Amino acid sequence: MLQFSKVKTVEWVNGRVRMVDQTRIPEKFTYVTLSNYRQVARAIERMVVRGAPAIGVAAAMGIALSANSSTAKDRDRLMAELRRAGTVLCHSRPTAWNLFWAVERMLRKAEATTGSRRAVAEELVLEAKRIAVEDIESNEKIGEFGSSLIDDGDRVLTHCNAGTLATVSYGTALAPIRTAVRQGKKVSVIATETRPRLQGARLTAFELLKDRIPVTLIVDGAAGYVMRQRMVKLAIVGADRITSTLVANKVGTYLIALAARENHIPFYVAAPSSTFDLERSDQVEIEERDSREVTHVAGRRVPPRGVRIFNPAFDLTPVELVEGFITEKGVLKPADLTGRL
Amino acid sequence: MLQFSKVKTVEWVNGRVRMVDQTRIPEKFTYVTLSNYRQVARAIERMVVRGAPAIGVAAAMGIALSANSSTAKDRDRLMAELRRAGTVLCHSRPTAWNLFWAVERMLRKAEATTGSRRAVAEELVLEAKRIAVEDIESNEKIGEFGSSLIDDGDRVLTHCNAGTLATVSYGTALAPIRTAVRQGKKVSVIATETRPRLQGARLTAFELLKDRIPVTLIVDGAAGYVMRQRMVKLAIVGADRITSTLVANKVGTYLIALAARENHIPFYVAAPSSTFDLERSDQVEIEERDSREVTHVAGRRVPPRGVRIFNPAFDLTPVELVEGFITEKGVLKPADLTGRL
Repeated sequence: MLQFSKVKTVEWVNGRVRMVDQTRIPEKFTYVTLSNYRQVARAIERMVVRGAPAIGVAAAMGIALSANSSTAKDRDRLMAELRRAGTVLCHSRPTAWNLFWAVERMLRKAEATTGSRRAVAEELVLEAKRIAVEDIESNEKIGEFGSSLIDDGDRVLTHCNAGTLATVSYGTALAPIRTAVRQGKKVSVIATETRPRLQGARLTAFELLKDRIPVTLIVDGAAGYVMRQRMVKLAIVGADRITSTLVANKVGTYLIALAARENHIPFYVAAPSSTFDLERSDQVEIEERDSREVTHVAGRRVPPRGVRIFNPAFDLTPVELVEGFITEKGVLKPADLTGRL
Repeated sequence: MLQFSKVKTVEWVNGRVRMVDQTRIPEKFTYVTLSNYRQVARAIERMVVRGAPAIGVAAAMGIALSANSSTAKDRDRLMAELRRAGTVLCHSRPTAWNLFWAVERMLRKAEATTGSRRAVAEELVLEAKRIAVEDIESNEKIGEFGSSLIDDGDRVLTHCNAGTLATVSYGTALAPIRTAVRQGKKVSVIATETRPRLQGARLTAFELLKDRIPVTLIVDGAAGYVMRQRMVKLAIVGADRITSTLVANKVGTYLIALAARENHIPFYVAAPSSTFDLERSDQVEIEERDSREVTHVAGRRVPPRGVRIFNPAFDLTPVELVEGFITEKGVLKPADLTGRL
């Protein structure tokens, strides 16, 4: 049971980074193995790996790759190389806070590590592995805290994919569902397909089916209707960045939060501390992605030529709409965000 | 200019019904010609013709076809045949009120017409043509009343397709935009792609481009973000049925209405009287369509096999969220709905 929780989305294997190729699911479940940080940056950009926590871990491992392969003659040059790798990795995608958090943590570790290039590299590999292990531990805690919010028989709405595939394993928004199922509760899920890249249809449906958790797919526009019809008891989504006032998450999240409030359905955001960027309030860069994501579905163009496209990958939800933030430290209220994490 | 307003989506031509085949736009702009009511019912079911007003006109013409081809020996048998045609047509799709309105109007006309089978048939053909003409006239009035709500430079959000292709011509939600453009105002449109059938991407983008009205396409989930970013001044959608308490329209409309209220963006519903079903309050059948509409995009399956699908074609928006109903009789407030039409 819950076999998909054993999958490692991003893993350090024999000095290289192995990740699930998420662009090919559900047709093919394959791995790619990357040996330098530029490949990692490109994989993040192309969304071979996606999901804020998974991106963070991948970037940390990218820094470790850079240290491992360095031929820098002295410490200053090594640090310059690592900072350069960090900059390239940070430019891969602009919104997920975990990416910046992980790169900064790795660079701080490098600075704090004395000794040879080899010693620094070894410590950075350890640190990247630590970040990966902590991610799973955080998700299990999120699962524990979050599962208390789910009753036997509940149906949960989720958006995009905040599961194993968005993390190293176990997931953020899907963690409370998995833990509730482990506790013997009967839980089912309504997943939005999540245009334009259909992570709900491709990834969330895939991993929940693997874990034999009943999942029903709807188009994004139907989220309001299922809440109004009381077909779900609560909603849980992940997050790409949480400031003291806003949650940046997959575009469409804001609409779900509004419909949840309107229909008195608790709306939860599940995320580890590394997603929280509490020093900022409303400065979040929202990534705009290629228009082809909207115009082309399964390789075929849908709209007529000449139409303009606006394709923001994320939207912003005021924290007041959030019933609780399910973190590895407990379930926090929006008011707790000031200085708590 | 506005060349697409000359297109007739449904038309009585030489004793048959000619309609634009909307399943093939934008790749191909073609017509199909139907010679019996069963073909019309099938065309409505298959969404060769769609949009509440266009469906109503098609159904009226279906009744006229039935009368025209009848070999009934007496008046009772003729009426029985027409009622049977009406029942088949009414079973083609359950939500759009215009369908039931049109069939009922045609049957009442048949009952009220004295004389031979031939005389009844001639009168029914005339009545169907009248309904088609009135549709265009209503839409032009909707355009006039609605255009006063649009200022020079405004950008308007719309959902699905409530344009020429949803009516005989000119549209409901797109009518105020067309008239405002005719008045010399610079108006642009943000159109949601409208999953699952992508009427926004395929039809609204197509007809606005033909009329050289600037149109930007977004995924449905981005509607909240564009409103929160104040990228639109107002929202106008069509309707499939309006009761004294609810608006049934393309799934996703409710989310747009909620985000509009939250962001103080006026949300209008444009529809002719034939869409109003004011004797009912909350009894609206919401059609559930084939799961293939969700699972298959451009002929290719997206989600893994085994996932369940819930595919409601419409949702319900409380009338309190509507700033005004733009009708051929003027712009009505929700409070006006009781007994006004």
